[in-house]
Amino acid sequence: MARKPQHIIDRERLRKAETRRSVWLFGLHAVRDALLNPRRERRRLVVTPNAARKLADAIEAAGIVPEIVDPRRFSAPLDPGSVHQGAALEVAPLDWGGLDAVLSGRKAEEDTAPSGGGATRPPLVVLLDRVTDPHNVGAILRSAEVFGADAVIATARHAAPETGALAKAASGALERQPYLRVRNLADTIDRLRDAGFAVLGLDGAAETALEEAVAEVVDRPLAIVLGAEGPGLRQRTREKVDHLVRIIPAGGFGSLNVSNAAAVALHVADWLRRSRALPGANGSSPTPPDVKEG
Amino acid sequence: MARKPQHIIDRERLRKAETRRSVWLFGLHAVRDALLNPRRERRRLVVTPNAARKLADAIEAAGIVPEIVDPRRFSAPLDPGSVHQGAALEVAPLDWGGLDAVLSGRKAEEDTAPSGGGATRPPLVVLLDRVTDPHNVGAILRSAEVFGADAVIATARHAAPETGALAKAASGALERQPYLRVRNLADTIDRLRDAGFAVLGLDGAAETALEEAVAEVVDRPLAIVLGAEGPGLRQRTREKVDHLVRIIPAGGFGSLNVSNAAAVALHVADWLRRSRALPGANGSSPTPPDVKEG
Repeated sequence: MARKPQHIIDRERLRKAETRRSVWLFGLHAVRDALLNPRRERRRLVVTPNAARKLADAIEAAGIVPEIVDPRRFSAPLDPGSVHQGAALEVAPLDWGGLDAVLSGRKAEEDTAPSGGGATRPPLVVLLDRVTDPHNVGAILRSAEVFGADAVIATARHAAPETGALAKAASGALERQPYLRVRNLADTIDRLRDAGFAVLGLDGAAETALEEAVAEVVDRPLAIVLGAEGPGLRQRTREKVDHLVRIIPAGGFGSLNVSNAAAVALHVADWLRRSRALPGANGSSPTPPDVKEG
Repeated sequence: MARKPQHIIDRERLRKAETRRSVWLFGLHAVRDALLNPRRERRRLVVTPNAARKLADAIEAAGIVPEIVDPRRFSAPLDPGSVHQGAALEVAPLDWGGLDAVLSGRKAEEDTAPSGGGATRPPLVVLLDRVTDPHNVGAILRSAEVFGADAVIATARHAAPETGALAKAASGALERQPYLRVRNLADTIDRLRDAGFAVLGLDGAAETALEEAVAEVVDRPLAIVLGAEGPGLRQRTREKVDHLVRIIPAGGFGSLNVSNAAAVALHVADWLRRSRALPGANGSSPTPPDVKEG
C-alpha cells in the first residue's frame, strides 16, 4: 500500500486536532449562555422545535442556523443520560489566553474604569490541584464568578476538561469566568508569587485557620489552592504554597465537599477584602468584619 | 376468586412498607461509615473479596456476615452506573426522631457536658425548600456537620430521600448529621419561631446582606432556609421567614450552586457566633470578626 502524501497526513492531523477541540454543550441554560457569548466560536446547533422556540431570541442574536430535529431522534453526540432538554451546541473551547493575559486584561479594565467607583480589590485566583469532577469544577466556576475571582486555574492533565457536563454544572459561569489550564501548577505558583501573590493551600490537617491567614494578607493579591477530596494537595504543591490553612470544623468532625470549601474560602477572601476596600460601607453593602488577632 | 384474609393483606402491606424503608448504600466510604454507626439497622452486606478485605475491621465491628460475591457478578440491586467499589449494604433509614427530639437531645448533651469547655453556641438548623438533587443535599449534610448545625430539615415530599446516591455524596455525614423530613415546612418555621429561632431565607433578589442579618441575631437560635436553584423559595416560605437575605455577588453577576450557598451561610453563622462565644480566642481558634453596622 502506498504511503499517504504528507499534506494529506497534515490535513488529517489538523482535522483531528480540530475535532478534539470541539465541545458539545447541552441543556437550555448552557446553550443559551453560549449563544449569547460573543467570545464563543459556534459550530452546530441541534434543537427540538420546542427548544428552538425557547431559545429563539438567543438563536437570533447568535445568527446561527439551527438544525431542527425530532425530539424522539435527537441526534447530537452526547453522553447517554445527558439532560439536554432538546438543545445541543457544538463549540470550540474558549481561549482565555494565559495567566498574563487574564491579569493584564484585569489591569486594562481598571485603568479604563470610571474613578470614584470604590477602591479596587487586589487580584484573586483559585488553583485546582487535580480536582477532576466536572460537577465540582462547575460549581467552583460559579463561586469564582460570584466572589469576583479573576481566574480558576487547573492543570492541563488530571483536571476537568471543558465539557458539556462541566458547562451544565457551571450554569453559565463557564462563558464568563476565565478557566485556565497550565502545564505545571508548581511553576504557576512560582510565577504568582513573583507577581506578589500570597498563596494559601487548603489542607484539613493544617494548624492555621483560613480566616486568620486571609486577614493577614488582605491587601495583597491572593491565590487559594485546593486539592482533590481524599488525596488533597500533592506533596510538591504543599511545599510550594506560603501557608497551609484549614477551615475549622465547629462540629469537630467531618469534611467539606471541595466546591463547598472553595465557596467558603472565596467568600472569606471577598468579605475581608471588601471590608478593607470600603471603609464605612454604605447601606447596600454588607457589614464589614473587623478581624483581629486572637 | 376468594378475597384474601385481612391478616394476609396486613402482612403484605407491612412487608411492602418494610421494603420501601430499605436503602442500599454503596461505595467503600459510605458502607464503612454505616457499618461503624451503632444507630444503623443493617440487613445485608454484599461485597467482593477485595472490598471485604478493605472493610474487614468495620465488618467485624458491625458483627454482620457478609455475602462475598464475584466482582464480575455483583448482585446488589443498585442503579446502573453506581460506583459501588465492590461494596453494598442494605440498611433501614436512620430514625432521628422529630425536631423536638433533636433539639432536646442537644440540650441533654449540653447538660452533661463538662463545664468550662467554652460557651455553648445557640442551635443552628438548615431548612431545605424542595432541594431535590442528592448531590447537593449530600454536600449540604457535610457542611452542616462541619459547621456544627443541629439538623438539616427537608419536606417529606419534593426532597432528596435517603438513598445510596445521597449517602455517597454525603461521604459519611449521613450517618452522623440529623436529616429530618417534615410534612410541612411552613409549620416547621412557625414551630421554630415559637421556640425563639430567627429564620433567614436566602434569596438572590433580597436587599439585606446575609452577613448583616446573621450578625444581628448572633445570640439567638438560627434557622437558614434555602430553596431549589431556579425557583428558589416558594411564596409561602418567603412569607414565613423573618428576613430574606442574599449573598452579595462581588463580581456583580452569577449565582451559587445551592450547596455552595449553604456552605457560605453556615460558615458565616458559625464564624460570627464563634467569635461571640469565644471573646479573646486562643491561638488555635480563628480570628474573631467584629461585625459593625455600615
